[in-house]
Amino acid sequence: MPKKRMVVVLGRDAFAETFPEQQKAIKKAAKAIADLIEDNYDIVITHSNGPQVGMLHTAMTEFARLDNLYTAPPMSVCSSLSQGYMGYDLQNILRTELLNRGLYKPVVTLITQVKVDPFDEAFANPTKVIGRYMTEEEAEKEQQKGNHVVKQEKGYRRIIASPNPLEIYEIDSVKALLEANHLVIASGGGGIPVLEQGTNLKGASAVIEKDATAKLLAEGVKADTLLFLTGVEKVYYGFGKPEARPLDTISVAEAEGYIKEDIFESGSMLPKIKAAVEFIKGSDNREAIIAPIEKALDAVHGRAGTHFTK
Amino acid sequence: MPKKRMVVVLGRDAFAETFPEQQKAIKKAAKAIADLIEDNYDIVITHSNGPQVGMLHTAMTEFARLDNLYTAPPMSVCSSLSQGYMGYDLQNILRTELLNRGLYKPVVTLITQVKVDPFDEAFANPTKVIGRYMTEEEAEKEQQKGNHVVKQEKGYRRIIASPNPLEIYEIDSVKALLEANHLVIASGGGGIPVLEQGTNLKGASAVIEKDATAKLLAEGVKADTLLFLTGVEKVYYGFGKPEARPLDTISVAEAEGYIKEDIFESGSMLPKIKAAVEFIKGSDNREAIIAPIEKALDAVHGRAGTHFTK
Repeated sequence: MPKKRMVVVLGRDAFAETFPEQQKAIKKAAKAIADLIEDNYDIVITHSNGPQVGMLHTAMTEFARLDNLYTAPPMSVCSSLSQGYMGYDLQNILRTELLNRGLYKPVVTLITQVKVDPFDEAFANPTKVIGRYMTEEEAEKEQQKGNHVVKQEKGYRRIIASPNPLEIYEIDSVKALLEANHLVIASGGGGIPVLEQGTNLKGASAVIEKDATAKLLAEGVKADTLLFLTGVEKVYYGFGKPEARPLDTISVAEAEGYIKEDIFESGSMLPKIKAAVEFIKGSDNREAIIAPIEKALDAVHGRAGTHFTK
Repeated sequence: MPKKRMVVVLGRDAFAETFPEQQKAIKKAAKAIADLIEDNYDIVITHSNGPQVGMLHTAMTEFARLDNLYTAPPMSVCSSLSQGYMGYDLQNILRTELLNRGLYKPVVTLITQVKVDPFDEAFANPTKVIGRYMTEEEAEKEQQKGNHVVKQEKGYRRIIASPNPLEIYEIDSVKALLEANHLVIASGGGGIPVLEQGTNLKGASAVIEKDATAKLLAEGVKADTLLFLTGVEKVYYGFGKPEARPLDTISVAEAEGYIKEDIFESGSMLPKIKAAVEFIKGSDNREAIIAPIEKALDAVHGRAGTHFTK
């Protein structure tokens, strides 16, 4: 049987917030991915970095306040830091899981830059809340620097843009490693956001939606399947309400109708559904699935999760 | 003419300490590497992370003191953070330099783990000073945790082990990308130090000497040339003394004699010379060169730097 290609998207349920807990938490996702490799899939993994990049941004900003030499790094640098340490944890744990099953398959993380458009309207309407709580005075200083802030219960926080990903610069390296049968981790946290200025790539003050980058990645490597692994059993029509109804399948037309009805959570389910719909629409013979981490293999065999159809 | 393979080792002169300055500083090394690519070399880059990993360790440790949730990450995690952001800066600047010359060659950073021996005597005799200055009280706490500290003029600092690198776990990925004609950045900062425990790789509290890992990398990819780019014109016999004598060439026997005489600085030149000698001794038709960044191309054509001979 010819091998099929899959992009697996790990959401925040696959990780933990702190350093010591993260390696433990990843074991669940590692089992799911090893199951899929045993089932004859070639896989590229991508992942969220929401809490992690916020933590790194806060830590480095606090450090810059204490230190005379260092200034706070831009979000693009924080994103590269998160790709480094989350990739390390992932490839470390995945290697062990594969070896324990007698599988020798190299696993490696690629630092990945992703193009965004400086005129993306997301820069005018930032939606991703990051970093620590600030006082009103600090919040005003941020605004004077041109940064956006939002008032929350416990104080002010920075809110940054989540522009649309347009191009993965390291896609050829992902493809070369897939061809060589390696397990690849790429575009972590949606990728390091950069603006193209001539031949330069300038780091952008943004966090790209990782589900949107996952779709771009799946198209780039000509994946057969785009699999979102989450913490919920299925996509629900009316999630959180008494009349909530789990969906085994969802057609493109239904999904587009539901998106218009505005029934999905914008921070979690909506970007997955949008990415899945766009992936399915792009070509024939493509699969998109949203499923819980523990049921990854069941999901690709049609026994779990929500499946998108044309 | 068949292409030759080279491992290029960037020392701290190729970088800057702070985030905004680093991208500027790297341009010099990017020009050197682009020159070598135009001269028909396939290249793997590796680099130091001395000031950077120390900064990250300090920043994350300070953050853990302020924050209730996070604990300070181990050195292995700090190493992965440094690989992420230094790799990002390198691949970003290198891509631009290559494009400006009309060269299309993908550039990518691999997160890289390197095996060290838990019984390496370096763990008993740590030599790498890292992190912030501590009070006597804080230093005692570190010692109670089993960490080593050293007293310096401005206070106490942690001092950690620099064990010998034994194996690069992601070497197959480096080779696959080289075969596909990509420019690869790997084992930054000597690699993330890990101890092999069955099928697990456990992060080690260490910083591996990057020059030693560079030699392992050069052997792993069957490089023809191991090129150390530094801030000095040549290796000097009697560096810093009035009678200092620059060396155009140095034989293995001479180098081993000088090493016994203890004439090289242990923190900078000595590990390069040791790595160069071991690389040259390992097989015929190998080249090892120590040269200034600006003269990389001159050096490989025999017009600059210090060349190691059998």
